[in-house]
Amino acid sequence: MNKPSIPKGTRDFSPSVMVRRNYIFDTIKSCFKKYGFLPIETPAMEKLSTLTGKYGDEGDQLMFKILPRGEKLIQRVHSLIGTKVIEGQVVPSKEINTLNPALVGRMADEALRYDLTIPFARYVVQHRNDITFPFKRYQIQPVWRADRPQKGRYREFYQCDADVVGSDSLLNEVDLLLLIDEVFNQLGVQVQILVNNRKVLKGLAELFEVGDRFLEIVTIIDKKDKIGDRIYIELVENGFGETVVSNIRQFFNQVDLAPLGKGKIEKIKEIFSEKNIETGLKGIAEIEEIFNMCANFIPAERAESIEIDMSLARGLNYYTGAIFEVRAKGTDFKPSICGGGRYDDLTGMFGMEEVSGVGISFGADRIYDVLEELDLFPETSSDTTRLLFVNFGSTEAKYCLGLLKKAREANINSELYPSAAKMKKQMSYAHSKGVEYVVMVGSNEMESGKIRIKEMSSGEQSNLTIDELINQIK
Amino acid sequence: MNKPSIPKGTRDFSPSVMVRRNYIFDTIKSCFKKYGFLPIETPAMEKLSTLTGKYGDEGDQLMFKILPRGEKLIQRVHSLIGTKVIEGQVVPSKEINTLNPALVGRMADEALRYDLTIPFARYVVQHRNDITFPFKRYQIQPVWRADRPQKGRYREFYQCDADVVGSDSLLNEVDLLLLIDEVFNQLGVQVQILVNNRKVLKGLAELFEVGDRFLEIVTIIDKKDKIGDRIYIELVENGFGETVVSNIRQFFNQVDLAPLGKGKIEKIKEIFSEKNIETGLKGIAEIEEIFNMCANFIPAERAESIEIDMSLARGLNYYTGAIFEVRAKGTDFKPSICGGGRYDDLTGMFGMEEVSGVGISFGADRIYDVLEELDLFPETSSDTTRLLFVNFGSTEAKYCLGLLKKAREANINSELYPSAAKMKKQMSYAHSKGVEYVVMVGSNEMESGKIRIKEMSSGEQSNLTIDELINQIK
Repeated sequence: MNKPSIPKGTRDFSPSVMVRRNYIFDTIKSCFKKYGFLPIETPAMEKLSTLTGKYGDEGDQLMFKILPRGEKLIQRVHSLIGTKVIEGQVVPSKEINTLNPALVGRMADEALRYDLTIPFARYVVQHRNDITFPFKRYQIQPVWRADRPQKGRYREFYQCDADVVGSDSLLNEVDLLLLIDEVFNQLGVQVQILVNNRKVLKGLAELFEVGDRFLEIVTIIDKKDKIGDRIYIELVENGFGETVVSNIRQFFNQVDLAPLGKGKIEKIKEIFSEKNIETGLKGIAEIEEIFNMCANFIPAERAESIEIDMSLARGLNYYTGAIFEVRAKGTDFKPSICGGGRYDDLTGMFGMEEVSGVGISFGADRIYDVLEELDLFPETSSDTTRLLFVNFGSTEAKYCLGLLKKAREANINSELYPSAAKMKKQMSYAHSKGVEYVVMVGSNEMESGKIRIKEMSSGEQSNLTIDELINQIK
Repeated sequence: MNKPSIPKGTRDFSPSVMVRRNYIFDTIKSCFKKYGFLPIETPAMEKLSTLTGKYGDEGDQLMFKILPRGEKLIQRVHSLIGTKVIEGQVVPSKEINTLNPALVGRMADEALRYDLTIPFARYVVQHRNDITFPFKRYQIQPVWRADRPQKGRYREFYQCDADVVGSDSLLNEVDLLLLIDEVFNQLGVQVQILVNNRKVLKGLAELFEVGDRFLEIVTIIDKKDKIGDRIYIELVENGFGETVVSNIRQFFNQVDLAPLGKGKIEKIKEIFSEKNIETGLKGIAEIEEIFNMCANFIPAERAESIEIDMSLARGLNYYTGAIFEVRAKGTDFKPSICGGGRYDDLTGMFGMEEVSGVGISFGADRIYDVLEELDLFPETSSDTTRLLFVNFGSTEAKYCLGLLKKAREANINSELYPSAAKMKKQMSYAHSKGVEYVVMVGSNEMESGKIRIKEMSSGEQSNLTIDELINQIK
């Protein structure tokens, strides 16, 4: 028999990895709660009508769709291909279809969720009458994409989202930035938090007098971070005039040369003011207000890492105000490990207008890679077994069950090896499981009530009563 | 636009429900860890070849299968129906198939997992070289079944499983019973734990001299709990002879009349001994040993609730030793809320023989219903926001951000209402979110440093410094 395996692009998580993943999830979750976000969960499957058309053509293609069952599937196949059954024979109907992917995609009624944002928008609209706004929710669940698997890209991965909908106050942006700062500070990762504003991007397009080609120009400018000055070549190649391109270059030169933080903000304000670009000024004023508030509540050395990045344009599809992106410092790992922004019309696609929201999403898999590369995972974890009782035989084992009970009553994760296997085997079990203390109870120990304890990290041995051991561990 | 909705049989979980569900999951999870189980996770999708044939024909039909994508799907459709494309025209191949559900089911390569047991068996075999046995794992993840939805039965639901594989020691059964006792004791649910043993059932079939119709007879006996004496009619209807049926009736009468616990065990032993039924004696000896060990470590009033039930036969497909089932007391809710048993050949289906295991599974949805019916959910939860700062305007809000920071540094879930909305609106927000304390800071409070606090449950108001408030809450 062949060794069984799992679908391409999916993963099994073994205990040692799970313990580390849970460390990340638990940290994020506890911060979400601390900032007043409450959990929701939505089904893995959504109606295809909910998801279709929300992620562009590529997204529609990459969705995992569910095969209809039984007769429904048979009818779908016949109707798609243009055949029917007459007297047990399959015969062509009037019109025969040549199948194509878009056509057969319609065979399904349901698909696995592709992200948490659209299901959340659907949730808000569906439950609007039961929700008290502003609604602060977090959601940590897997999503599925039939992407070509490659290093760091999977077909099943978790998203960790927090959003506030139903409030347009900038205090929400500030709160999310404080939350981002707190999560990464707790994880021990130094980060750079890039901030921009869709209104600033609008202002830039106006400034360069290319307002009618807004999306195009912003998409190219967004690459500045990756390809640097080659954006100017790309702009020319895309038919932007020489004056436009030279204006853009001049603008970025001026801003890049300005001092970080306040310096850049003043420079951009000055440029927008000269040409009286109102949208741009509004955007930069929002950024300034956010910066000022954050500066009061984040220690200076970390507040400095919040930077304005005029070329940042992620999630253009729906962001309308603030845009955030977080990158880890001190590593070659370039992709963003967290991002988000404000959207003013997410629920509009389901017929509920004028609900403003702002949200962020943490990339757990990428954060895992960063913590691993920088060796930032904690040595021990409250998830693992701390105490293993060696099994020397049935009499000793029964005696140990009493001690085991005491340890567990003291909330110490503990277990008794289930059979009187060779000592070496039991020790290697303890080792592989990362157990902190091994307890040995033979006839002497049973008589004296003092048990022998080996601390696995140091190899040190001692004799203690179970109560003394429990006190020591706690 | 129509109000959006979700697929039949699936659910959205709103914060108030999530907080209660998490209470159940967290309790189970902390007990799993306390007993030395470590977490794993497997992908939502498994290869169809891994799952097919493991759950019977019904299970195969009820699996959610994944639609292949692109060209692959088109080829599958053509090959299934028996057509091909020649010069853009769909024409019949040599053989045309009349589609049937089994045939079209083969269109898929992957399906959503149907339970956690088969993926776990697949996991153990696939990772056998990296696992140190005995392997104690827990797994809490959703599973999907295309069952007809009805009250209490969903198409997506969580399973909470803990298993030990690679050890045949009865200490594992004992540990799992202690674990079951601890979980329900922590949740405040009084339960009845029914125990049986597949070997006892084998012994019964031998005793009644119907060994060759073992599965049949056990399936009928299993209904005794639901339909009582009507099992005897059903046995006759299924062609069991009068002597056999009267023997069975006599047996159950004798056992039912024997005193609970030790009394029943002795009676069954006596009956098996008379006829020298070895398998049965071995089974009852195992039960006795498990009972004796549990009795030492579970308080008497709860240990009494562990009962032998000779008709219990769940999961006949793979259980080979102990069988457990747990029911809530003090409620009309009859279905089992936890169950499990020992299996000696789970991994054999994937070519890895002779790995004995024993496991249990908690039914979170059913436990939820029981806790709700018996009003056993805790009043407050560490998940919700405890402190809400009312927003009286931008000056006051900025002042509050500093207090908010202090509260969060003390690990108190807190938030500031994001805009200076009407007091009534802010209070109703606090109320709907179950906030414990509302903090009001106006100009007087900013001057004096004493903030006004309203305790929401009592309506009591007081004036405290932020540090005093934090101390009071902690």
